[in-house]
This record gives sequence, C-alpha cells and structure tokens, in this order.
Amino acid sequence: MAKESMKITPWEVSGNIDYEKLIKEFGVSKLDNKVLERIKKHSKKLHFMLDRKIFFAHRDLDWLLDEYEKGNKFFLYTGRGPSGPIHLGHLGTWIFTKWLQDAFNVDLWFQFTDDEKFLFNDLSIQEIQKWTYENMLDVIALGFDPGKTHFIVDIKHIGLMYPEAIKFAKKITFSTVKSAFGMTNENNIGQIFYTSMQAVPAVIPSILKGKNVPCLIPLAVDQDPHFRVARDVYPKLGYYKPAIIHGKFLPPLTGVSGKMSSSKSEVAILTTDSPKEVEYKIKKYAFSGGQSTVEEHRKKGGNPDVDVSFQYLRTLFEPDDKKLERIYKNYKSGKMLTGELKQILIDRINNFLKEHQKKREQAKKIIDKFIYKPSTSVS
Amino acid sequence: MAKESMKITPWEVSGNIDYEKLIKEFGVSKLDNKVLERIKKHSKKLHFMLDRKIFFAHRDLDWLLDEYEKGNKFFLYTGRGPSGPIHLGHLGTWIFTKWLQDAFNVDLWFQFTDDEKFLFNDLSIQEIQKWTYENMLDVIALGFDPGKTHFIVDIKHIGLMYPEAIKFAKKITFSTVKSAFGMTNENNIGQIFYTSMQAVPAVIPSILKGKNVPCLIPLAVDQDPHFRVARDVYPKLGYYKPAIIHGKFLPPLTGVSGKMSSSKSEVAILTTDSPKEVEYKIKKYAFSGGQSTVEEHRKKGGNPDVDVSFQYLRTLFEPDDKKLERIYKNYKSGKMLTGELKQILIDRINNFLKEHQKKREQAKKIIDKFIYKPSTSVS
Repeated sequence: MAKESMKITPWEVSGNIDYEKLIKEFGVSKLDNKVLERIKKHSKKLHFMLDRKIFFAHRDLDWLLDEYEKGNKFFLYTGRGPSGPIHLGHLGTWIFTKWLQDAFNVDLWFQFTDDEKFLFNDLSIQEIQKWTYENMLDVIALGFDPGKTHFIVDIKHIGLMYPEAIKFAKKITFSTVKSAFGMTNENNIGQIFYTSMQAVPAVIPSILKGKNVPCLIPLAVDQDPHFRVARDVYPKLGYYKPAIIHGKFLPPLTGVSGKMSSSKSEVAILTTDSPKEVEYKIKKYAFSGGQSTVEEHRKKGGNPDVDVSFQYLRTLFEPDDKKLERIYKNYKSGKMLTGELKQILIDRINNFLKEHQKKREQAKKIIDKFIYKPSTSVS
Repeated sequence: MAKESMKITPWEVSGNIDYEKLIKEFGVSKLDNKVLERIKKHSKKLHFMLDRKIFFAHRDLDWLLDEYEKGNKFFLYTGRGPSGPIHLGHLGTWIFTKWLQDAFNVDLWFQFTDDEKFLFNDLSIQEIQKWTYENMLDVIALGFDPGKTHFIVDIKHIGLMYPEAIKFAKKITFSTVKSAFGMTNENNIGQIFYTSMQAVPAVIPSILKGKNVPCLIPLAVDQDPHFRVARDVYPKLGYYKPAIIHGKFLPPLTGVSGKMSSSKSEVAILTTDSPKEVEYKIKKYAFSGGQSTVEEHRKKGGNPDVDVSFQYLRTLFEPDDKKLERIYKNYKSGKMLTGELKQILIDRINNFLKEHQKKREQAKKIIDKFIYKPSTSVS
C-alpha cells in the first residue's frame, strides 16, 4: 500500500506523518536527553509528554534555559483558532502548557485567532465569536492560573495587535508566505496578511514592560511555519526570537495518520460528549491493533503501536509509565483483548470528561478574569 | 521626443497623463454636461473645477443623485496618506470636497491612512504620526464643518476598521490586487492587505446607523484602483457601491506630466512655505510656455496650455472665468510676459497661504473636534 504523502501547514494536515523527516524539513532541533535534563533541573519531574517524546522537537530551548538560569524569566504563548468545538486532540498542547506554567511559575498569553478562522473558513464572525466563548471555557477548565493567564482575542484586542502586526507585515513578502504555507495567487489578501497577527503575542509582554522578555511557544507542529516566517523578523524589530517546543498530533480515531479534526465529528471525541457518545465512538471507530477473532488474538497478540486506543492512553490518559507498560505487554501478548483495552480508554476519557465538564460550567463565572484588559489605552 | 509612458497606481504616477485614455482603461464615465446639469440643479452654481473638467470622470453619480432626489442623503469620503507635508497638489480634491459638503449639506468622513504610509514608505510610525497631526491642520484650515467632519486614523480607529476590513479582505484575492495595482510576489503582506482598509470608510455610516447610506468619494484619479477592486465586494457584504468623482493631478512645477510630489520639495509648493520660498520656487522652477526672449515672446506669444503658472491659476487660484480668459489671451498673444504671469500666480498663492497658515495655527485648538470618537453619536 502506497504511503499517503505528508502535508503539513497550519490549515491542512494529511498523510502519514514522519516526524523524523519533519525535523529535517522544518529545520528544528530534536528534543534530546541533554535538553530534557536541563528542563528537569528546574521542573524536578518531567511531564510524561516529554519522556514519551509527544513533545519531540524545539527551537532555541537552550537559549531560553540559559536566560532562565540568568534570572531572565520567560512567558508562555499558545493559542486556538476558534472555528468549532474542542476535541481531545486540542488538549495535549494545553495540558502540557499548564504543566509548564506550574513548573516554571510563569505567565501565559493565550491567543484566540478569530480573524484567522473568519478568513480561512466559511463561517460568519458571529459563529466564530460563539466558538471563541465555548473554546475559552475548555481552556479555563484545564486549570490555568487566572492571575497569570491572559486571553487575547485578535479582533477584540486589535488595538493592541495591529500596530505591531504591521511591523511584522512590512518585513514579510508574499514570496515568503507562498513558500512557507503553499499559498497561491488565489488566496485572499486577509489570509496572506494573517501570519503577522500570529507573530505578535510573542512580543506583547515586551511591549507592555518596555523591555525584552523571552518567550516559549508550546504548539502542535503544524503551527511551526508561522514562526519559521516570523523568526527572522523578531530581531529586526529589536525583539528576541521566541523559543518553540513542538508537539505531535493526536491521531484521529480511525487511524494513526493525519490529526484529529472536529470537522469530522465521528472520528473526534469532543469535550462536550456524553459518556454514551464516548463509548459509542471508541467502540465503533477506534482503529484496533487486534486480531479479527478472539482466538487469533490470544494466539498472535495485538499491535499496540498502531492501536488508537493504546495511543490515546500513551499520549493523554495514562501518565503512569508502569501501568502503560503493563497494558502494552498484555495487549501485545494477546492477554488483553481489544474490547478490554477500549474499555480502559472509555473509562479514562469519561472520568476525565466528567470532571472537565464540571469545570467547564464553572468557567462561565470566571471567564472575565482571563480576558486581557489593557490598563493603559493603546493608540 | 518620445512620450513617457503613463503609469498610474495609488503609489506611483508618472509619464504624460492621457485622461481620455484613463477613462477607457479604468472603465469610468466621463463627467458630461448632463450629469453636471443634474448637480447644478441642487448646488445652484457649479464649482469651477467642474466647469473646467478638473474633476473629469465619475462612477455611479447618476445613481447617487437619484438617491439624493429620493431623499436618501449621501455622505462624502476622502482621505490622505500622511507621509509628508501638504503641497498645493493635495488641496484641489479637498477644496472641492469642502464645496460639496457645503453645497449638499452633508457629512464627510476623512481617512488618514497611517498604516498604508508605514507599509509603503521607509518611515517610522512616529514620523507618520507627526505627519498625521500636521496634515490634519491643513485639512481643518480649509474650513470643513467640525460638526459634520469626522477624521478616521487607521491605526487609532483600528477597532472600528478591522472587523470590517477583514470582510473585504476575505473577498479579494492576490490575483486581483496584482492586476489592479501591479503588485508582485515581492510586495510585503501588509501592502497586499492594505486596500481592504481603504474600502471601509465608505461603509462606516451604514454600520453606525444600521442602514445603508449612499457614499460619494471625491479623489485624485490615482486612487481609483482601490475602489475598482472593492466595488464588487460592497454589494456582497450588503452595502451600496460608493459613487466616485475623479480629479486630475496638479502638475509639478517643472512641467505638465506626472503629479506634484512633496518628496521632491523643489518642484512642490508646500502649505508651510514662506512668501520668499514661493516666489523663489515659481521664478526658478515653474515651467514656462513663453519664448526665450522678450522680443520673441511679444512677436510669437506664449503657450498657456503647457505653462505651469497658467495651469495653477486655472486649476486652483483663479475661480473667475473671465479673468482667467483674459490672462489666457494676453499670454497667448504675447501681450503678457512670463514674468508677469508668474507674478500673478505668486501673489495669488501668497495671499492664499497667508490666510491658510493663520487658519492652520488656529486648527491646533480645534483638532479634537474633528477626530472621531466612537462614543459620540453621528447625525
């Protein structure tokens, strides 16, 4: 079977993703044990997403840690394009970001790119505003510190964003966005401009404080092209280049290529799904590494490396390495059946979502604490 | 002598301008006597810039007058890219706009495109902010009604502009701006986006009032491509297409091709020039249609049609048709010498500037009345 060729831009992820190849193509650095040890020196423990190389690559992390060790604290910047509901695939980066916030005791600037989603999707501004609100609830539900977390919504905060965005825009040509994003002459002029808006939050604390503040951007690797384009511009404007840490995608339920997408809701588990929906989706769609009959499975064993349920446990829901190892061995030996493996995952997801949905409701009362309010007007 | 080929975009005007050819190329309508009569019905008198076809073309003026006659009042929209000092070449459109404001008793929205000038010029935002302020003084000095005139500064009013600009941007491709403006892959992405910002003021009153308001845009013809691009978009967003009335350029002092430019200050008369500077510039640089000796001039006569001093009188400084005709005849016959013609212009300009500079000083005290404040209700 021919491998589907890999395509990765902020607006399209398809094919079998070869992360080793990505590291070379994007020109990023592997997250090796040396840099992991440096992180561990400060965070005491490593998050399992680091140990398991779910976060697998970086740019300039060594520089960021040098600065940190000199007492020059960084801030975190990540974001969300609010075009639909949140699914499990979105959560990995944010859960990891929350861990970084706690481990390093740092601020987080979280951008909601409503303009982007309007420009790239067939959605009205009203629909996107609804999703912005809904998505904020999911982010808050993950437990970010309201005193250290600042939501920026592009259109709402355009007074802060635009004067800086045009500085980036002035130094980026269409040739550059063509090659970085595969744009053509038929892209609309808002799409072409947009990347300059995504560059800005990495310098907002520097603007507000009137001095350079290092920035670390945890992101899913498809967002890297924005910063590949912008990173040469930062120093030209007198700013540090932001450091980046790159995460892998959570595969769709149906298999281990591409990424989970909420536009295909049957292959994505949404944070608002009921226990029954979760059970149904996993049982019906989760691609299995098992054999076709119980007898065969007992004899030959399953393949956890392609099994989506196992991958979800590994990526998100089983932090305990020993427990994960046990599941791996039992499934591989045939001792654990696919139905049993799926049930473990269903229980884990439903436990998580029960708590998440409760916090998501509570988030409605504290949402205002998270939305950035400029203390001084920007003109 | 080969004619220099004509090039007209919002950012470059060069060559011998053939306005008849422009009408065809841009697909605009000639401002014929029929439509002039319709204007006259409401304004009683016609401004000499209409009689003399300084304003020479239009789009949709008949529709605008139909609406006006049905009681559906229009507003005016024009603007300025604040990249340097104001020279005489800028004033024609604004003097005519002021006449329209008075004749039809209508509001004017005046856009200062500081973002454009930042994106297209090698100037800092601080320098452009300085020019924005200085240029506002010149506009106010022309006597616009502060109760009916609203200044919009793109960056300052970005909260009002951007949500609408991205709606235009979504419907304009790079192909379109390439062909309308001659852009290339090496244009920066802010320049590519910019035209959507210039489209917006034509709909601001419609947004604020929650119903469609007709718009008339007086402009120098080099600005037409912006609206050629945007006019198909207005109806898609539920707005009227704005009507446009197109003015010719004031030629540079050195001759009757191109347009006056403040980046070549020796061929432009600035509103802040002293009487001595005006005298020096006109005497030294104003291209003359006269003969090389007095004797020859008396015998053969001069050519007022290429004489820059005569053109300035015709375009800006001699509203009286009879007086202008007399000057024309006397210069053509050789009765009036070039020195005498220049002296008439010098006196007219200095009289005008004396008053203008006084009003420009007074404008500093009332500038705030003109800058649009989102909280104030607009009539």
